[in-house]
Amino acid sequence: MLQQSDRETRRGYTLNDLMSGSSDEVRALIRRGELTRPTAGLAPGYAQANLVVLPEDLAFDFFLFCQRNPGPCPVLEVVESGRYEPSLTARGADLRVDIPLYRIYRDGELVAEQKDVTGYWDDDLVCFLLGCSFTFEAALIRAGIPLRHIEQGKNVAMYVTSIEARPAGMFSGPIVVSMRPIHESKVVRCVQITSRFPMAHGAPLHIGDPAKMGIRSIKHPDYGDYVKIKEDEVPVFWACGVTAQAVALRSRPRLMITHSPGHMFITDVRDEELAAS
Amino acid sequence: MLQQSDRETRRGYTLNDLMSGSSDEVRALIRRGELTRPTAGLAPGYAQANLVVLPEDLAFDFFLFCQRNPGPCPVLEVVESGRYEPSLTARGADLRVDIPLYRIYRDGELVAEQKDVTGYWDDDLVCFLLGCSFTFEAALIRAGIPLRHIEQGKNVAMYVTSIEARPAGMFSGPIVVSMRPIHESKVVRCVQITSRFPMAHGAPLHIGDPAKMGIRSIKHPDYGDYVKIKEDEVPVFWACGVTAQAVALRSRPRLMITHSPGHMFITDVRDEELAAS
Repeated sequence: MLQQSDRETRRGYTLNDLMSGSSDEVRALIRRGELTRPTAGLAPGYAQANLVVLPEDLAFDFFLFCQRNPGPCPVLEVVESGRYEPSLTARGADLRVDIPLYRIYRDGELVAEQKDVTGYWDDDLVCFLLGCSFTFEAALIRAGIPLRHIEQGKNVAMYVTSIEARPAGMFSGPIVVSMRPIHESKVVRCVQITSRFPMAHGAPLHIGDPAKMGIRSIKHPDYGDYVKIKEDEVPVFWACGVTAQAVALRSRPRLMITHSPGHMFITDVRDEELAAS
Repeated sequence: MLQQSDRETRRGYTLNDLMSGSSDEVRALIRRGELTRPTAGLAPGYAQANLVVLPEDLAFDFFLFCQRNPGPCPVLEVVESGRYEPSLTARGADLRVDIPLYRIYRDGELVAEQKDVTGYWDDDLVCFLLGCSFTFEAALIRAGIPLRHIEQGKNVAMYVTSIEARPAGMFSGPIVVSMRPIHESKVVRCVQITSRFPMAHGAPLHIGDPAKMGIRSIKHPDYGDYVKIKEDEVPVFWACGVTAQAVALRSRPRLMITHSPGHMFITDVRDEELAAS
């Protein structure tokens, strides 16, 4: 339980408190506007999710895009129009206010970043929650495979590839991948561990040469921060949920609301509940 | 390749020919109306699929029903309105004529059984292909776990349970399960093997007492044929694609076209391509 008596941070909660909070405790802080930081490491053990919100008439095509691209876009839950409670993955939550920071895109342009999107809400919006790599990163760390971006408090490095996602209706675009340098002795174990989590991007898409995926400069990621690949390490690439945002930029839906990168929705689903077996 | 010179059957193909045919060869026979038998055992190694066709305005809700019930309804491919070629799982196929026998439901009533549904087709129909248990049955047999219904040339026994599927929009209904008697020494292996195939109903839903799922009389299946459970065997239950048809009966969409039970669509996807890892 969160210790409210400890006052080390501005809001009255230490990072350690948050790192041991349960999903609903952390969501309550976010809803009250008392927490706007990225959610990596918060409510450990609970799966976090990417959010994509679209008008109802575009929802079938986006759903189909996800079904055809389950690597980057594994669907955890779809909330129908007229509702904003993801009752299967977080009963009682409100997707309009329970994420620390949102992005609003109109016609493919980022027009605002907000802590609350109630003002943008409409009864015809459909919400998609997509699995997030935090789930498999936690599993890698539990297995003794260190992840440098986490050790350094950075965002994971992400790259737009030359691989086209399978299109669906109006939605098309490139697959975005995240890259983690893995010690060459741990690459096989890394494949095994992440294969257990198909609902969190699953096994790597590619191991080794970045050029094979059309990545020109590994030192210059399109999103997030570069972390050095050491002599005895191999770059390992996973399909990334940011694909949905890259696709939005190209496909230009008239309205799309997402989480702001790194500021995820925290579900009540345990990471281990998402394991394939 | 099919041996067309051998004339043991009425149509000029022996069952042995068909059992060694590739997916496109067998589909070609079906399209020409030369094969109307159930598809169990045909084109071995290729995944077969359940078909559900619905008007476009009902398609989002049914898609959502499948996403919420991936055990009975694992989605292999969705073909958008205006098309009938499942280009991701069987390029060049025609879903209106490439299944040996179809069922047409209007307002939840079975109104016809046809070898060709071209006459019912409309540009606003959306096709769903859902994974089929033949995929995991082949894996069980390869692992030396015999399946009595196959040995006896019967349909698998299926039961309507008291477990409600998660509803979505207009679609709700009970989960239907298939039952296979498994030797008590093989039950664990059976769970392991079928867990590899989440796109073909995956791991069992239940092992043992049928009453726990609301099944009153194991000897009287709701669909298919009963096979005896011997002294040293345990009934093992899997979620079943017939759930979609049971849900149609209750939810009464104005039009729904499906395959006729056992008469599946044969895809070009290898069973092993569907394995989770």
